[in-house]
Amino acid sequence: MEHSVAFIGLGAMGYRMAAHLPSTFKDVRVWNRSFEKAEAHSAQYGTRAVSLQDALQADFIFSCLPTSKEVESIIYSNNIKTGAIWIDCTSGVPESAKNLARYLEEKNVAFLDAPVSGQTIGAENATLTFMIGGQREAFDRAQAPIQCMGKLIQYVGESGAGFTVKAVNNTLLAAHLWAAAESFSLLKQQGVNLEAALACINASSGKSGVTENILAQRILNQSFPKTFALALLAKDTGIATDLAREQRLPIPMLALTQQFMQAAHVSDQDNSDFSAAVKLYEYMSNIKLEQ
Amino acid sequence: MEHSVAFIGLGAMGYRMAAHLPSTFKDVRVWNRSFEKAEAHSAQYGTRAVSLQDALQADFIFSCLPTSKEVESIIYSNNIKTGAIWIDCTSGVPESAKNLARYLEEKNVAFLDAPVSGQTIGAENATLTFMIGGQREAFDRAQAPIQCMGKLIQYVGESGAGFTVKAVNNTLLAAHLWAAAESFSLLKQQGVNLEAALACINASSGKSGVTENILAQRILNQSFPKTFALALLAKDTGIATDLAREQRLPIPMLALTQQFMQAAHVSDQDNSDFSAAVKLYEYMSNIKLEQ
Amino acid sequence: MEHSVAFIGLGAMGYRMAAHLPSTFKDVRVWNRSFEKAEAHSAQYGTRAVSLQDALQADFIFSCLPTSKEVESIIYSNNIKTGAIWIDCTSGVPESAKNLARYLEEKNVAFLDAPVSGQTIGAENATLTFMIGGQREAFDRAQAPIQCMGKLIQYVGESGAGFTVKAVNNTLLAAHLWAAAESFSLLKQQGVNLEAALACINASSGKSGVTENILAQRILNQSFPKTFALALLAKDTGIATDLAREQRLPIPMLALTQQFMQAAHVSDQDNSDFSAAVKLYEYMSNIKLEQ
Amino acid sequence: MEHSVAFIGLGAMGYRMAAHLPSTFKDVRVWNRSFEKAEAHSAQYGTRAVSLQDALQADFIFSCLPTSKEVESIIYSNNIKTGAIWIDCTSGVPESAKNLARYLEEKNVAFLDAPVSGQTIGAENATLTFMIGGQREAFDRAQAPIQCMGKLIQYVGESGAGFTVKAVNNTLLAAHLWAAAESFSLLKQQGVNLEAALACINASSGKSGVTENILAQRILNQSFPKTFALALLAKDTGIATDLAREQRLPIPMLALTQQFMQAAHVSDQDNSDFSAAVKLYEYMSNIKLEQ
Repeated sequence: MEHSVAFIGLGAMGYRMAAHLPSTFKDVRVWNRSFEKAEAHSAQYGTRAVSLQDALQADFIFSCLPTSKEVESIIYSNNIKTGAIWIDCTSGVPESAKNLARYLEEKNVAFLDAPVSGQTIGAENATLTFMIGGQREAFDRAQAPIQCMGKLIQYVGESGAGFTVKAVNNTLLAAHLWAAAESFSLLKQQGVNLEAALACINASSGKSGVTENILAQRILNQSFPKTFALALLAKDTGIATDLAREQRLPIPMLALTQQFMQAAHVSDQDNSDFSAAVKLYEYMSNIKLEQ
Repeated sequence: MEHSVAFIGLGAMGYRMAAHLPSTFKDVRVWNRSFEKAEAHSAQYGTRAVSLQDALQADFIFSCLPTSKEVESIIYSNNIKTGAIWIDCTSGVPESAKNLARYLEEKNVAFLDAPVSGQTIGAENATLTFMIGGQREAFDRAQAPIQCMGKLIQYVGESGAGFTVKAVNNTLLAAHLWAAAESFSLLKQQGVNLEAALACINASSGKSGVTENILAQRILNQSFPKTFALALLAKDTGIATDLAREQRLPIPMLALTQQFMQAAHVSDQDNSDFSAAVKLYEYMSNIKLEQ
Repeated sequence: MEHSVAFIGLGAMGYRMAAHLPSTFKDVRVWNRSFEKAEAHSAQYGTRAVSLQDALQADFIFSCLPTSKEVESIIYSNNIKTGAIWIDCTSGVPESAKNLARYLEEKNVAFLDAPVSGQTIGAENATLTFMIGGQREAFDRAQAPIQCMGKLIQYVGESGAGFTVKAVNNTLLAAHLWAAAESFSLLKQQGVNLEAALACINASSGKSGVTENILAQRILNQSFPKTFALALLAKDTGIATDLAREQRLPIPMLALTQQFMQAAHVSDQDNSDFSAAVKLYEYMSNIKLEQ
Repeated sequence: MEHSVAFIGLGAMGYRMAAHLPSTFKDVRVWNRSFEKAEAHSAQYGTRAVSLQDALQADFIFSCLPTSKEVESIIYSNNIKTGAIWIDCTSGVPESAKNLARYLEEKNVAFLDAPVSGQTIGAENATLTFMIGGQREAFDRAQAPIQCMGKLIQYVGESGAGFTVKAVNNTLLAAHLWAAAESFSLLKQQGVNLEAALACINASSGKSGVTENILAQRILNQSFPKTFALALLAKDTGIATDLAREQRLPIPMLALTQQFMQAAHVSDQDNSDFSAAVKLYEYMSNIKLEQ
């Protein structure tokens, strides 16, 4: 396609995501704060390592940064191509998305909050889920580049709705994680075969993404591979509970979940994977959660 | 097969489960407290409606009753065939299973606690999950009749382990249900499209059996079909938390879940489906949880 | 004394508090949004009903308003006497106090956040507790007018510290209230004499301000007199949990308390007294909390 | 008085309590499992160290033992004087009190569950609170010996009611303790002067027995003197939550309190004082709760 595409932020997710763009687009620009990463990407995938200013002159601009703050600092202090569509894949703050969309609209730039799920494996295989908020018309126009990377591309509502769904998804993840930790510690203490119990639950009504994909792979083997930081999960649960707080919506179970994630993060010394939140529970229960 | 099989308790589950036995066994006996159900079953599926005493002389005796109390009252006051295997599909109490297994062992009868999951549709299609505790040798010998009804047939540990896994599964179900209610109320309040959000979450790390099979089908359409009583879910969560209490294991999130199920049950006027637990949350949040 | 004093906000608390000033100060000015109240006060206590501008030219300016927002709107849009000390008795937001103190300091006006406790009876008898944040030097200079109204006048730290202590106090009140509701419902259900149990607890380690002063007087007699709104208690618990959230401090029990207060407020139809928070628990437990 | 009195169990409480009896009664018998304590008491206070059988022939028999189990094992395996009144000051289980009262009634012995509060200082000064369940007539007849030791002697209901009130009191203590730990960690983190804040709260609506008598004396100075074991507080909170569970009463906040006490006990390595429950919170919050 003739349109130019830029990708800003080549972390574990962004690096893999941007790799799919050259198959469809001729002009793919990449930028990263530590520029060697951009140059490596360029060498590996035939993209073009450019200056931030050049990246911001593309027709489609993707960003995938740690938090909304980094996105804001770029947008609020640089010129962006008139008519461009900005697709922000950060797990960001809904309020920030609303502000950015309003700010950019005046400059005739569309902003979509478009966080993704599917982890690095989904980024690698271009099977990510995109949950997207913003103007429907911009969503429609941005299909081509997004489809290079995603499998389920879902419009969920106005600006901020994408970030909201992501924050809620991750808060459910956290709740399911903690509930699973308590449940399997109980099963262990009762002398139940954990592997067998897990097979039953995964074939029953109590299953979750955590019992299917996290418990055996990361926790019961005590591996806790560092792919998604506990600090970020604590942050995401905070985004969800902040939304509820602003709206005066009581959410007792999610609030407790947020507290436990916060406590797990605060008492964590190792910048651990999110799955290591269960270590706080291991301390509280004095039971090691392994098979 | 030459062995005789009996099925005691022809409720919504048992009636459908027992229907699969005649295809493998010639001598299939059924008994129910209101005897017309046994006679109907006999007429419909070619089983034999018998007296309780005759049922207890079968080689394999299945039971599927509301609680452990009903199972105990039959076993403790009747004679059972020497050498029989009792397979109890009730969602029962682990302690009761241990006592019954010990009591029956002295009479040379094996007792398996073998609760099932998969609901009435699984019973109908013989695709139930059986989670089974007791002596491994009895588990092995009972494969033939169980395989008539189940898809995943899993040995999980000694007597009581089956009931324990079932109680834990249902407590996870309850936790996921309440967390989903809070989450989707928050999404609704934020103006997010609930159907689209559900699609995203079901393709992401926050999914659960509840988001996949319960939320749209029972709650967001406010149908709450009565298939599994809230009273029973409250009971099952109580079985799990009682186990933890006996062992002095702290389980704060599951305990809170049990409290909410208890409160939902206590404030329910309609003997509702388990999914209607969310009505308590609707009261607390003043938000109707519908699309 | 020769110094002039002004009192802004003649609600249930302010009206009674300002009444004590004329015994010590000659020039006491009062202002209220609905001006008749100021005139009534003037007639009743010999104060002087003045314009807002005149009030802001006093040496000591007290304010007692519903929330920090009302205080901000006055301060940020009016001229205040150079060298004055502003003593804000509102139950306000610590962040707001810090901002106001910084803003006023540039205008050579000192700002003390000085919330009070003791309710209307304490205001009437001049036995209020003042918990005060801000510059120690201003605290010392403001002793004379504060001592007209207070019994315990406590310096607790820098700007915002007063509001923080008040918010924490009220969150403890809310936690104790909910815990007492659960406790006495349990006692009632067990057939215990509630009055006798209350006497025991008030002589024991489980006592609290709630068991001593709230339970019998407001709840067990189901009177719920409207003196301190549930909406305001919900607000105050929110101020405390917001502080913890900003600092990433996990506070699971206070967070749950805040959620219950929020839910009690949201499900309350009658703009009730704070003590009526227990009505949500009555709904959840299906027990009427009366003797 | 001519009546004989026995005291069984000379622990930290019982030793001091029994010391007050000789001033009113001539025949005071004491018994303890490690008999040297009884002999020391006899030498110090003029009581009579006797065999268990002799103790059980007194007109009034007090017991003060760790749990209901020890009381049961004595009562169910010994003869007791016909017409005696047994006054059990243990912090026991209500169900056990009901069973013991029924069992002893057939032997013409009255049983009062009469737990005390006031700690060792109250035992020393004879200012204990007695919360008493059982037959009113026995309560009336037992006034003389109880008044030797107590200040508030309160009849609270039928058998078990005394133990129930004690369990609820201690659960409130635990809830207030945990809430205070969170509150003062928040205040510390905000830079508030803790001593000053405590003075304010103790003069305000958020006060409790914990803020008045525990926080400064045991926690903020990190002394945690071993006077009442955390293990026992965890036990008592369990008694209260078990009662609620049996009656199907939801008590979410007290249940969470019980879970935290359980977790604090389980993760405690030092057989600590109850006040050291806050050490679990210190771990969760990464803040040392000291001035």
